[in-house]
Amino acid sequence: MPERLIYLDHAATTALDPRVLEAMLPYLTSDYGNASSIYTLGRRAMQAIDRAREEIAAILNCRPTEIVFTGCGSESDNLAIKGVALAARNKGQHIITSSIEHHAVLHTCHYLERFGFNVTYLPVDEHGLVDPEAVERAITAETVLVSIMYANNEIGTIEPVEEIGRICRQRKVPFHIDAVQAGGALPLDVKALNADLLSLSAHKFYGPKGVGILYVRQGVRLLPQQQGGSQERGRRAGTENVAGIVGAATALRLAYEELEQVQPRLRTMRDRLIEGILSRVPRSRLTGHPTRRLANNASFCFEGVEGESILLNLDLLNIAASTGSACTSGSVEPSHVLVALGLPPEWARGSLRLTLGKDNSEEDVDTVLSVLPGIVEKLRSLAT
Amino acid sequence: MPERLIYLDHAATTALDPRVLEAMLPYLTSDYGNASSIYTLGRRAMQAIDRAREEIAAILNCRPTEIVFTGCGSESDNLAIKGVALAARNKGQHIITSSIEHHAVLHTCHYLERFGFNVTYLPVDEHGLVDPEAVERAITAETVLVSIMYANNEIGTIEPVEEIGRICRQRKVPFHIDAVQAGGALPLDVKALNADLLSLSAHKFYGPKGVGILYVRQGVRLLPQQQGGSQERGRRAGTENVAGIVGAATALRLAYEELEQVQPRLRTMRDRLIEGILSRVPRSRLTGHPTRRLANNASFCFEGVEGESILLNLDLLNIAASTGSACTSGSVEPSHVLVALGLPPEWARGSLRLTLGKDNSEEDVDTVLSVLPGIVEKLRSLAT
Ligand SMILES: Cc1ncc(COP(=O)(O)O)c(C=O)c1O
Ligand SMILES: Cc1ncc(COP(=O)(O)O)c(C=O)c1O
Repeated sequence: MPERLIYLDHAATTALDPRVLEAMLPYLTSDYGNASSIYTLGRRAMQAIDRAREEIAAILNCRPTEIVFTGCGSESDNLAIKGVALAARNKGQHIITSSIEHHAVLHTCHYLERFGFNVTYLPVDEHGLVDPEAVERAITAETVLVSIMYANNEIGTIEPVEEIGRICRQRKVPFHIDAVQAGGALPLDVKALNADLLSLSAHKFYGPKGVGILYVRQGVRLLPQQQGGSQERGRRAGTENVAGIVGAATALRLAYEELEQVQPRLRTMRDRLIEGILSRVPRSRLTGHPTRRLANNASFCFEGVEGESILLNLDLLNIAASTGSACTSGSVEPSHVLVALGLPPEWARGSLRLTLGKDNSEEDVDTVLSVLPGIVEKLRSLAT
Repeated sequence: MPERLIYLDHAATTALDPRVLEAMLPYLTSDYGNASSIYTLGRRAMQAIDRAREEIAAILNCRPTEIVFTGCGSESDNLAIKGVALAARNKGQHIITSSIEHHAVLHTCHYLERFGFNVTYLPVDEHGLVDPEAVERAITAETVLVSIMYANNEIGTIEPVEEIGRICRQRKVPFHIDAVQAGGALPLDVKALNADLLSLSAHKFYGPKGVGILYVRQGVRLLPQQQGGSQERGRRAGTENVAGIVGAATALRLAYEELEQVQPRLRTMRDRLIEGILSRVPRSRLTGHPTRRLANNASFCFEGVEGESILLNLDLLNIAASTGSACTSGSVEPSHVLVALGLPPEWARGSLRLTLGKDNSEEDVDTVLSVLPGIVEKLRSLAT
């Protein structure tokens, strides 16, 4: 068993970058003030939050005041969708999204259905792509929001969000992008993306867990979803998680400073994984788009094996991977994403997602390529 | 100017206890797994959360499954109130609360009013006490929730929550206690309190910012307010803030282990502050209840001065204090709490809240007693 953990589940979460922890530590020790307090210690906390907001705004090409800090990516998605939909509910009650969104989007839409909203769940093609023309056709006079993800968390497919955003802008429908998987990996210029709202989660890009970011374009009507104090300009109440916010901004800044070094390395390792696995494991296929995919995502289906059994065997070898979304692990249903791709159940149940990170090495790829074919073969022979 | 900061705003927030940070650090470094992941690293995160839940349940005298982790005290209040009210909206649409609740409760009630709910805001007496009989009289067949705070954040008054809870139980109305200011200071046995729901915020008891706790008694119907993954048994979606949760539990445990040492010390210092200030500063009065008050809360009004000016003068001397709620600092309106006590505006505007913590010393009290009378006198002479 390899001593060192080979962590290949960066889509689920990432390790906090030590430089991020270092930036957070003052706010976990001496600088403990409440950012709403007017004395020096409080103002220091507020200044740290202001700086964080500016750093993030620079990466998103927006104003600092358009950034709202939340408690996680799910909260950002909830706030974006409910906030816009409920603010516009007297105007219309129709929302458009896709069938492969994260549950933070899908279940939020289900929640709104209980309160009278109609939701169109657009299908995707075999690679997981949403058709921008289908978005356009689905828009009615009642449509108050379109929410499409930037990149899918299970299969890594990158959606044509700029084009969808262009259509939404023309049709004057607010457009929300769930960019939780794209943060730190793809360009986040909200103007280029034609985004009105955009969600991020810090723990996906080597920042702390428990911090979400929501971009809300100035002028977008948003009904706040967490009432209380006037923090975040009244858009999200609650004493600010100063250390977490500083960590989120530091992590995002580092990710974009190092994008050019990191992404090509990930892509090379990803392609070796994909080619190696498809050529070594019989009855295997890549899931997601062959080229429009996140640089770190190699995801597969293997006919006639249980994804979960593969994971447990990998875990015994100190390799961490996933069958898809972390939130659905433990459930026996095949993932809604793989079902939406049209994969037959005997394939969909055998899914494996390997998501690389900046600390992975070519040896990690070699190890996976050397052990995975044997694991799949063994499991198949046990099943027969 | 004293070198060392004299921090007297523990009701706004507290410094992270170094032992809490130490307990958190593994989850900010090596143990970074996603608690929903099924491999070893993920399971270790889930085990840490389970242990945290058990530690908290032991203090609240409830089951671990009745504890929900949230992103702050405000979220706990929002989830409790909206969750219960919206789940019961077909049964009735009436909520009872008090006029001196924190904005996390009051503004949540205002939000529900937009969606058709009726809210009774009970008055309080001159000391800030809610009358349990008034709660009883306000209950109708339509009442779906009573929400009363355990202790007030501005004036420290401790409400008769057990008695109110007894009435609610008899009348079969769910009872929520905002215990954010009571956490770490007053007994939290939810059975003795007759509580159905109870909110806490970790940063008020030397835990991290960005972590809330909500107790929800088994059997209470709650409509989750943050949709997504099935974390927290489907009651609050979002990747868990493992380090924060571990920190919250450690902080709560330490607070109750050390309660007997800390609280009497605070009470002694508080009483010296109260007696010293009332005797040294003319036209001053205590706000809140003379005896039923938090052991760390000394709050005052001074006629004819601006509370904010007192704060800035104290800040120049490196003393951190507050005019009341941290969330409302910066606003010019007199606090809704002081208004509800019936204080005339020329008194209500001159409020000062000193809230002690375990690191304060008798010398801190001496310093305040030696400088505050001069500050008030100077401000009054400038005003005339
Ligand atoms: C009584 C009370 N309730 C709720 C809150 C909200 O807690 P948080 O700011 O952690 O969201 C506070 C603190 O500000 C409070 O004092
Ligand atoms: C695409 C996508 N959206 C939203 C989320 C939710 O983020 P979080 O778990 O940080 O709340 C995730 C991560 O789980 C995700 O991958």
